Amino acid sequence: MNYDQKALEQHLKLKGKISLKLKDQLDDQQKLSIYYTPGVAAVSKQVADNPATTRDYTWTNNNVAVISDGSAVLGLGDIGPQGALPVMEGKAMLFKHFADIDAVPLVIDVHTADEIVALVKALAPSFGGINLEDIAAPICFEVEERLKKELDIPVMHDDQHGTAIVVLAGLINAMKLTGKKLSNSKIVVVGAGAAGTAIMKLLNLYAKPDLVAVDSRGIISSKRTDLNGQKQELLSFTNQNDYSGSLADALVDADIFIGVSKAELLSAKDIKTMAKDPVIFAMANPIPEIMPEVALQAGAAVVATGRSDFANQVNNSLAFPGIFRGALDNKVSSITDQHKIAAAEAIAGLVDNLNHQNIIPSTLDERVVPAVAAVIK
Amino acid sequence: MNYDQKALEQHLKLKGKISLKLKDQLDDQQKLSIYYTPGVAAVSKQVADNPATTRDYTWTNNNVAVISDGSAVLGLGDIGPQGALPVMEGKAMLFKHFADIDAVPLVIDVHTADEIVALVKALAPSFGGINLEDIAAPICFEVEERLKKELDIPVMHDDQHGTAIVVLAGLINAMKLTGKKLSNSKIVVVGAGAAGTAIMKLLNLYAKPDLVAVDSRGIISSKRTDLNGQKQELLSFTNQNDYSGSLADALVDADIFIGVSKAELLSAKDIKTMAKDPVIFAMANPIPEIMPEVALQAGAAVVATGRSDFANQVNNSLAFPGIFRGALDNKVSSITDQHKIAAAEAIAGLVDNLNHQNIIPSTLDERVVPAVAAVIK
Repeated sequence: MNYDQKALEQHLKLKGKISLKLKDQLDDQQKLSIYYTPGVAAVSKQVADNPATTRDYTWTNNNVAVISDGSAVLGLGDIGPQGALPVMEGKAMLFKHFADIDAVPLVIDVHTADEIVALVKALAPSFGGINLEDIAAPICFEVEERLKKELDIPVMHDDQHGTAIVVLAGLINAMKLTGKKLSNSKIVVVGAGAAGTAIMKLLNLYAKPDLVAVDSRGIISSKRTDLNGQKQELLSFTNQNDYSGSLADALVDADIFIGVSKAELLSAKDIKTMAKDPVIFAMANPIPEIMPEVALQAGAAVVATGRSDFANQVNNSLAFPGIFRGALDNKVSSITDQHKIAAAEAIAGLVDNLNHQNIIPSTLDERVVPAVAAVIK
Repeated sequence: MNYDQKALEQHLKLKGKISLKLKDQLDDQQKLSIYYTPGVAAVSKQVADNPATTRDYTWTNNNVAVISDGSAVLGLGDIGPQGALPVMEGKAMLFKHFADIDAVPLVIDVHTADEIVALVKALAPSFGGINLEDIAAPICFEVEERLKKELDIPVMHDDQHGTAIVVLAGLINAMKLTGKKLSNSKIVVVGAGAAGTAIMKLLNLYAKPDLVAVDSRGIISSKRTDLNGQKQELLSFTNQNDYSGSLADALVDADIFIGVSKAELLSAKDIKTMAKDPVIFAMANPIPEIMPEVALQAGAAVVATGRSDFANQVNNSLAFPGIFRGALDNKVSSITDQHKIAAAEAIAGLVDNLNHQNIIPSTLDERVVPAVAAVIK
């Protein structure tokens, strides 16, 4: 089904997907006097005198800002803040639906790391957490890193870590099926933007596998002279064997392919050059790097994609709702690498009937959010 | 009744007064595909290609940011962003309750005019309007003026104009009772901050009365050497007779006293020096400049205060909900002086049984918001 026309119609009909709700009605003068003046002055004074109690008296105990500058929206690229707003409202719906979190979509018309950091810091007293979304690499890395250092509320760039956590969860289960170990695996990651970089960092942290990063110009190696600082940094923990060349060169004897790149970049022939029982995570959207049936016919042991209409959907809705639910409930001030690994293990642990068509739980599985939230502490 | 303890208890119980509501439920995979990926991409593309249609596809047709830096919160002063949050959440409740507008409370930790202007401009694509709140004078004037020039959505600093509009509405009706004309009246305004300044500007625009501004050091006159730029500017249209001295000096033969200052600053003796049938707007909160019964006994023809337990409450809830409702519905890009006067006249026109105890409609009068909204076009 093509959802475009239906989505346009439905958005036009609703005129926005979210609205505000009052926790109590202002149906008499007394309530106005309690929730607004004069009564609220006592609450403001209490909070001003004891800022740590802000979350006890305001909605910051349950709210999160979903912030995007519109510079890397879905597959559409740099479409600007207005264009990003329907996606951020959608993300707010997901936060509410999956984790009962009150998320506020904020699209911003500043685009340098300094400006975005300054803006988010200025807004931070309004929120219990910050979900960065659809901000282009490499600026997203600096923005998130600086905000994590400078703020005492949880900050997460979901395009990086949401995806990375679910990929790790899927790989943990895929390894149970192939009998291989991540730490002994050669893993080729195609796409060195926000998601690809975060996936490689998390895999390195978890298992120190033989990681090979590939971008649109080929293997990221010390021989390349066109690498920006962020891609050079990848060389500190990837490509320890100093491979160079094309994606096809990288794939020889690889155990795992992870694609966050573009449609139909991988062929059946490529898969046949990989090691026995290769695992394929083809997450380009909406058309994966290789269609699952083609990959399976070419010998893939397990295939995952980003799509809900195929088996094994890598969907960051499995991660971010529980992560922020746990962070808010357990007053966690920073999402750490340990939290991400614990979340991946929690997600992996929910798959009961493990088989090559079932390595990742469904987003409809109601156990996911509480299981993830429980380990963010 | 003292509302402090009740307000603290109730805020602690609710843990915030507002939450998010979805306009449709995400109860199946198809809805996820329409409101989020892949369908939302078509909506984002539509909006990015035609930014003027943003309001048709997102909640910006019905939302407003309530923004404060916490520098002048109620009578509490500069208590900072956290302390301001309970008030801004309360304001969001008022927006929803009175005008069904989805207001987002944003408390910000930047305090210079340049920083506040930059932040609000950056956030503007997220909202259909900007309500500035509890920002200290004189920075509030520069912030509002610059934002009105630089943004194409309505911006209003409610502490200035909300109060000014309702004061003008009340005075229009008070003049019907005293038989005097505003244009022939001597009006003493005590308090030259946000509200006082806006009241004087609006009265000057409406009727060019003989305005005398008084601050904590006395009459604002050309003889004063301690005036900041904003107070010097007041001299361009106030104190045309070059009065100088104290509040008592200013009051001699005055027709109208307008106080946005502090408790019990005005005495019965002061009122007796005023012209016949003086009109007293004593709006200091929670304790007015003079208690109504004292003013009436001293000869006041009409007394208004900021309090709901006395007659004639000057409450900016009579103005801002209708103003933003009208601006959003009628796609008004800027709140003009003409809008403010039209709003005041609309509010004044709703008082049916005009008498000295009834010059301003009640905030519970459901005709107010539509009547005000209708003239913001």
